Amino acid sequence: MPMSISPPVTMSATLAADEAIARRRQAGEQVIPMTSGEIGLPVLPVLREKLAAAAHLNSYGPVAGSTRLRTAVAGYWRRRGLETWPDQVVCGPGSKPLLFGLLLAVGGDVVVPVPSWVSYAAQARLVGARPIPVPVLPGQGGVPDPVRLRRAVTAARAADRDPRAVVVTLPDNPTGDVAQPDTVRRLCAVARDLDLVIVSDEIYRDLVLAPATRAESPALHAPERTVVTTGLTKNLALGGWRLGVARLPDSELGRSLGERLTGVASQIWSSASAPAQEAAAYAFDEPPEVTEYIAACRRLHGEVARAVADLFAAAGALVAPVRATCYLYPDFEPHRTLLERAYGVRTGAALAELLVARHGVGLLPASAFGEPAGSLRVRAATSRLYGDTDEERHAALTADDPCRLPWVRESLDRVAEALTDLTSETAPHDR
Amino acid sequence: MPMSISPPVTMSATLAADEAIARRRQAGEQVIPMTSGEIGLPVLPVLREKLAAAAHLNSYGPVAGSTRLRTAVAGYWRRRGLETWPDQVVCGPGSKPLLFGLLLAVGGDVVVPVPSWVSYAAQARLVGARPIPVPVLPGQGGVPDPVRLRRAVTAARAADRDPRAVVVTLPDNPTGDVAQPDTVRRLCAVARDLDLVIVSDEIYRDLVLAPATRAESPALHAPERTVVTTGLTKNLALGGWRLGVARLPDSELGRSLGERLTGVASQIWSSASAPAQEAAAYAFDEPPEVTEYIAACRRLHGEVARAVADLFAAAGALVAPVRATCYLYPDFEPHRTLLERAYGVRTGAALAELLVARHGVGLLPASAFGEPAGSLRVRAATSRLYGDTDEERHAALTADDPCRLPWVRESLDRVAEALTDLTSETAPHDR
Repeated sequence: MPMSISPPVTMSATLAADEAIARRRQAGEQVIPMTSGEIGLPVLPVLREKLAAAAHLNSYGPVAGSTRLRTAVAGYWRRRGLETWPDQVVCGPGSKPLLFGLLLAVGGDVVVPVPSWVSYAAQARLVGARPIPVPVLPGQGGVPDPVRLRRAVTAARAADRDPRAVVVTLPDNPTGDVAQPDTVRRLCAVARDLDLVIVSDEIYRDLVLAPATRAESPALHAPERTVVTTGLTKNLALGGWRLGVARLPDSELGRSLGERLTGVASQIWSSASAPAQEAAAYAFDEPPEVTEYIAACRRLHGEVARAVADLFAAAGALVAPVRATCYLYPDFEPHRTLLERAYGVRTGAALAELLVARHGVGLLPASAFGEPAGSLRVRAATSRLYGDTDEERHAALTADDPCRLPWVRESLDRVAEALTDLTSETAPHDR
Repeated sequence: MPMSISPPVTMSATLAADEAIARRRQAGEQVIPMTSGEIGLPVLPVLREKLAAAAHLNSYGPVAGSTRLRTAVAGYWRRRGLETWPDQVVCGPGSKPLLFGLLLAVGGDVVVPVPSWVSYAAQARLVGARPIPVPVLPGQGGVPDPVRLRRAVTAARAADRDPRAVVVTLPDNPTGDVAQPDTVRRLCAVARDLDLVIVSDEIYRDLVLAPATRAESPALHAPERTVVTTGLTKNLALGGWRLGVARLPDSELGRSLGERLTGVASQIWSSASAPAQEAAAYAFDEPPEVTEYIAACRRLHGEVARAVADLFAAAGALVAPVRATCYLYPDFEPHRTLLERAYGVRTGAALAELLVARHGVGLLPASAFGEPAGSLRVRAATSRLYGDTDEERHAALTADDPCRLPWVRESLDRVAEALTDLTSETAPHDR
C-alpha cells in the first residue's frame, strides 16, 4: 500500500471539531458550539445583493484578482495607515490558501508563535517545511517573544535549518490578545536583523473590541519585509464565500514574493470566485452600511465574549480581559488537582472531551494550538452563540442587550451550569 | 535575500498567456485568443438564479462539501456507469486544487503524460515531487503509453525514486484526443501491477464531440485505485465560480486517500464557495435545461473547432480529426524548412511568438505541455471565438450555423489569413 509510508495529514482541528459537533447536534444532542471561530451572523443584505448581481461573472479573470477588487483593497489598507498600490494586492479563495501560497513562495522553514492558529504549522508540514515554535509572552499573544525569536532562529541556522519567515497574528487567535506596539516593533527589528519575512495575519484587524486597544501592523515598522493578509471571513461573517487578500511589501522583496505567490496561485487555484470578488470589492470600499454592520458585529462580539469570560472567571479559571476577536483562552490550571482527582483529567484534550461529552460544551484544547498536552487551557470561540436561525442572529445583532435574548441567555446559562458543575468541590466521584 | 535560493515558480502557461493577450487587447491590439481553454459562453440563466438565491449561505460547511452537492455528484457519476456513494465525493474550489491536494495525499512522485496540461508537472514540483514524463502514442493523448509506463516506473524505482501515481486526461488537453478503451484498459493493468494510484482528470468528459467516440474511465477497469476529477468549468463554462469535485475509489485505498485529501483541504482551503456548491448541486442533478445547454455548447464547440481545424489543414499543418474538447494540436513540422528560412523559427515558442506578434493569433507552443522545445506543434483553443459580448455568445450558442455569424466568421477569416500568410511560399524575406 503506497499510503503507508506517507506522513500523516492532520485535519484542521477547528474544522474537525466543528464537524463533530454538527454530527452530535444532528443526532439530537444539545451542544454549545464554541470550537470554531466561524461567525454565526447573517450576510449583510447589500452584499447578498452584490453577489447575486454578479452571478453572471464566469471568467477566471486575472490570477491576482480583478483590478476593481485590488483597487478597493488598496484603499482599505490606505485608510489604515498603509500606503498601498493595487499591484501590491493578491486575492485568493480565502486567506488560508494565501498563507499556504506564501509559505511556498518564501520557501524554507517558518517560525510560528506558540500558541497559534491550528493551520500555520500544519501548512508548513504539508510542504515539507518545519515549523519552528517560539513562545509568546503573557498578553502578547500572536507575536513570538523577540528575544526567543532571535535565539531560535540563530540556533536553527547553526543546525543547518533554513528559517526564512515568521508568522504573527494581530489581533490573535487563540488568545484574543492584541500584542503591544512595542512588542511588534521589537519583533520587526529582530526580523530585519535576521532577514526574515514577516507574515502578518490580520484577519481580526477590524475586531478590536476595547476602545483603548490598538493593533499596530508590523508593516508600519518593517514595511520592506511584511506581508499582511486579511479577508471577509471574520469582520463580515463571510467564511463560506472564500475570499482573502494579501498585501505584499512595496519593495524588491515584495515584488519577487508577489510574482512567486501569483505563480503558485496560478498552479493551485487559478483565481478566487469572480462573483465573490465583485461583492468583496464593494465591501472593501467600506461604504457606511458596511462599516455600520461591522460596528454592530463588534459590539455584539464584545458583549457576548465578555459575558462568557465572566463565567470562566466565576468558575475559577484564569482569563484575560477581552480585547479583540471572539476568542477566550481560559486556563483551568487552578483546578488541576480537582480535575485530576474528580475526573482523571490531566490534559487539555481530556478536559475538552469531558466538557463536550458530559456537559455539551464544545471547546478546543490548547494542544490544538501547539501548546503542551498538559496545559489545561482551552479556547472558547463565542461567535456562534447568537442563535440558530437568521432571525435570531439578526435580532442579536440589533439588540441593545443581546445577552438578555432568551436563546443567548440559555446558552450562557448552560455554559455557567457546566462550568459550575465541572469545578464544584462536590465532583462526581464524591457523590 | 532569502528568495535567491528558492526554486523558480512557473506561472501557469495558459493563465500567463491569457493575461498577456488581455493586455494586448487593452492596448488596442486585435488578438484572436486561442491560448486558454476558458469557455467563452454566458452562464445558463437558471444557474445564475440558483447562485443568486444562495447568496445568503455564508457558512464554511463540511470540508468535503455539502451533503446535497455530494449526493448530486454521486448521481452524476452513477448515470455514467460508475456506482458512487456521496461519501466518495470531495468537493473543492476547482478541480485544480483537488488535483494538487491529491498529489499531497498520495505522496511520492507522479507519472504525467507527454504532452499534458500545464499544471500537473508544475504542481508536482511545487510540493517537491518529481514528475516522471511518459509519452503518449499517436491518437491516445492523455494516456501514457502502457509499455513505456511500466518501463519508466520500473527504472525510477530502481533509481530509488518513489512513483505512486499516474495522471491521465480523458478526453485530453492539449491534444483533443480521446484515448481508446483498449489503451485505457492496458494502462489500468500496468497501474495495478505496479500498485499506482490512477488520477483520471475527466473535466472534458461531457465534451466528446464525435458521436462514435467513447471516453471510458479507468475507474471502470481499476475501480479500487482510480480517482476521477471533474468540475463545472468546461461543460458549463463556469471557470470563474471555482467548483470542482473528486470521486474517490470505494476501497480501503479510496477511504485512506479520501481522509488524507480532506485533511489537506482543511489546511489549505477549508471548503468551496457555499453559494457555488448550492448552484453546482442543481447542475449535477442534470435537469433537462442543464443537459440541453451542455448539448448546445457541445454542438457549438464542434462546429467551430472543426472549422478551425480545416484552416490548419488547409495551411498544410498536420491536424487530427476533431473528437472532443475545444482543443486542436496542429503540427507545423511539414513547414519546418520554410519557417526556419523565412522567419528563423526553430521552436514552437518562436512560432507562437511570431503568430501573436505578427498575425495577432494567440496560441500555446507544445513546450508548454512538456514537449521538446523543437516541436512545431501548437495548441489552439477555440472556445473563445464565440463573441466578445454575452449577446454575441448567446447568439452563437443558438445559431444553426455559428460559423456564419459575422464575428465568428471574422475570427475564422483572420486565422485563415494569418496561416496563409505564415505558410505561403512568398514568405517575408523573399518580398
